[in-house]
Amino acid sequence: MIKLGPGAVIGILGGGQLGRMLAMAAAQLGYHTHIYCPDERNPAEQVTDRLSRNCYTDEAALIKFAKQVDVVTYEFENIPVASVEILRQHVPVFPSADVLRVSQDRLQEKDFLNDIGIDTAPYKAVSTEIEAQEALKIIGFPAVLKTRRLGYDGKGQAIVKNSEELPKAWAKLNSHEIIIEAFIPFDMEISVLAARGQDGDIKCFDPAENIHKNHILDLSIAPARITPERRQQAVAIARKIVAELDYVGVLAVEFFVSSAAPIFRVNEIAPRVHNSGHWSIEACPTSQFEQHIRAICGLPLGDTSLYGRAEMKNLIGDDIHDMDLYLKDPDANFHHYGKKHARPGRKMGHVTRILPTVK
Amino acid sequence: MIKLGPGAVIGILGGGQLGRMLAMAAAQLGYHTHIYCPDERNPAEQVTDRLSRNCYTDEAALIKFAKQVDVVTYEFENIPVASVEILRQHVPVFPSADVLRVSQDRLQEKDFLNDIGIDTAPYKAVSTEIEAQEALKIIGFPAVLKTRRLGYDGKGQAIVKNSEELPKAWAKLNSHEIIIEAFIPFDMEISVLAARGQDGDIKCFDPAENIHKNHILDLSIAPARITPERRQQAVAIARKIVAELDYVGVLAVEFFVSSAAPIFRVNEIAPRVHNSGHWSIEACPTSQFEQHIRAICGLPLGDTSLYGRAEMKNLIGDDIHDMDLYLKDPDANFHHYGKKHARPGRKMGHVTRILPTVK
Repeated sequence: MIKLGPGAVIGILGGGQLGRMLAMAAAQLGYHTHIYCPDERNPAEQVTDRLSRNCYTDEAALIKFAKQVDVVTYEFENIPVASVEILRQHVPVFPSADVLRVSQDRLQEKDFLNDIGIDTAPYKAVSTEIEAQEALKIIGFPAVLKTRRLGYDGKGQAIVKNSEELPKAWAKLNSHEIIIEAFIPFDMEISVLAARGQDGDIKCFDPAENIHKNHILDLSIAPARITPERRQQAVAIARKIVAELDYVGVLAVEFFVSSAAPIFRVNEIAPRVHNSGHWSIEACPTSQFEQHIRAICGLPLGDTSLYGRAEMKNLIGDDIHDMDLYLKDPDANFHHYGKKHARPGRKMGHVTRILPTVK
Repeated sequence: MIKLGPGAVIGILGGGQLGRMLAMAAAQLGYHTHIYCPDERNPAEQVTDRLSRNCYTDEAALIKFAKQVDVVTYEFENIPVASVEILRQHVPVFPSADVLRVSQDRLQEKDFLNDIGIDTAPYKAVSTEIEAQEALKIIGFPAVLKTRRLGYDGKGQAIVKNSEELPKAWAKLNSHEIIIEAFIPFDMEISVLAARGQDGDIKCFDPAENIHKNHILDLSIAPARITPERRQQAVAIARKIVAELDYVGVLAVEFFVSSAAPIFRVNEIAPRVHNSGHWSIEACPTSQFEQHIRAICGLPLGDTSLYGRAEMKNLIGDDIHDMDLYLKDPDANFHHYGKKHARPGRKMGHVTRILPTVK
């Protein structure tokens, strides 16, 4: 177990809004941050002490970075595992390369979950269109084809309602590493942000209910509008996942919730802070960002109870131009990620409202 | 009126913890910050986009800085007025040079307050020890001698209980710009953080009760434990001050509160965010730091209502080493200013607790 005090330098791979909010949480606790990101004018560099603008595969730059920091973490799971393998020879990296490997591959991820007795949608990995046709006979229709790697926000996915639709979907995904999942009707999508410290202590945030628009998260509501008993069950599953992974840091677990058994199916896990937990900045004594920093620095985990009912709305693309409306709303906490251009589909900021629980 | 949108650059004179927390608030709203500070390894440079490490009196550096930013503000009132006069020729500066001039001189400050009908302790300006002896005959004992300029945290002050104590006090202060104030017994010290926008809108935070230890703020409690009516009266005085000054930004007003009339006497004003308002980060929808950024950028002022009763404790010198205690306390929000050495009397961080108002 490593314990880092204020003044230590936290290296963060990735310079997006998650890296930005991690850097601000780290600063509040007295840490320096060093952002490693190839992108020019990335959101995190505006609030960090030090910056390396290098490729994730530049071995010499990675080693130099590793020697300048006391611990490394990352803000997104598409960092090459090989890069983390290089870094870990010089500096502790949390979450571990093993966790990263599992979460980068939908097949390994689902195999892991099923192995520890956690339900997912039925699935099958295929590498040719012929294998896919065979798999669909077992999985049934509608089904979802997903690339095993590098998918996000609905990208790398295609729904097939019958076998005639397969060729087009197959061509669209253009990959030989495909997983076919049964399309599961569900009542609600929720997520649990779970944190595990280096000492094995686990603390979870209340499950959030997630509502998507155009395959992008639109709204997170915490706590999710399911019974307290159901919320406890979801938290128990998230606790099991971080414990089984020997995880260190914050991890997001996305669930589909159905009225019929199995009530909870895990859709995916993300080894990082997550968009569906941004409300924790204002709604909890400890935010998901501070919690992640506490975990990787060997500090005690913080309290995650809710001050009140929280609603987080993503501001996508032109939504950001409604800024003045939110600034005038006494209940709204407005966050702008410092991105210059409001391209369609781009996450530009978010707004959190806290309402008293009695409402 | 200037209105700056996200992406604009806010120049901040001063790189201490106030500049640091201003920079983080500015980043949350999507602004870039440029810290101007002569000190090596200052707390604010860890969270800012750009940095000028120059003297406050370096005219060429000031002009260069002014041309790189869209607005300038400051985190402490001992910036030379001449420097602000240079800057304002190139870029808007809030609060104004006029306000700065008044607040830098205890005599001008008290004259201004009395002129607009606000009570202070009785006072008299003197420049020689003989004048001081004469003034003390009118002011009476005990009295407080203060240097007119550059005092803070009890520095530049001496109490005299009788005329025999004057020579020593006079020698200690070693200045020809002295103000002698009557020593007013008081029940409580409170402060009001008032914000005024460029459009003249005024919003005040709840008055905080301030408890000092060794002449340094130890504890701020919001709302101050006086009647709601008294709190309104204090807020009305603060509103009057920012209105009369045509002020833009956040200003702190410190009061002595007595049971006998005049109930409120203003002790001093500070044209900036203030230590006694740090609880607003967690306890209010809009913090004093965000409010100041909103005001100087021409955004609408935010809501300042309290989520609950707030207590802010300063961590001075070695207090910071109790960090783990605070991290384990579920009600505590811990802030470390990123300073390396915990020298005695140095403000190293603070802790805010929010308790439900029903308690």
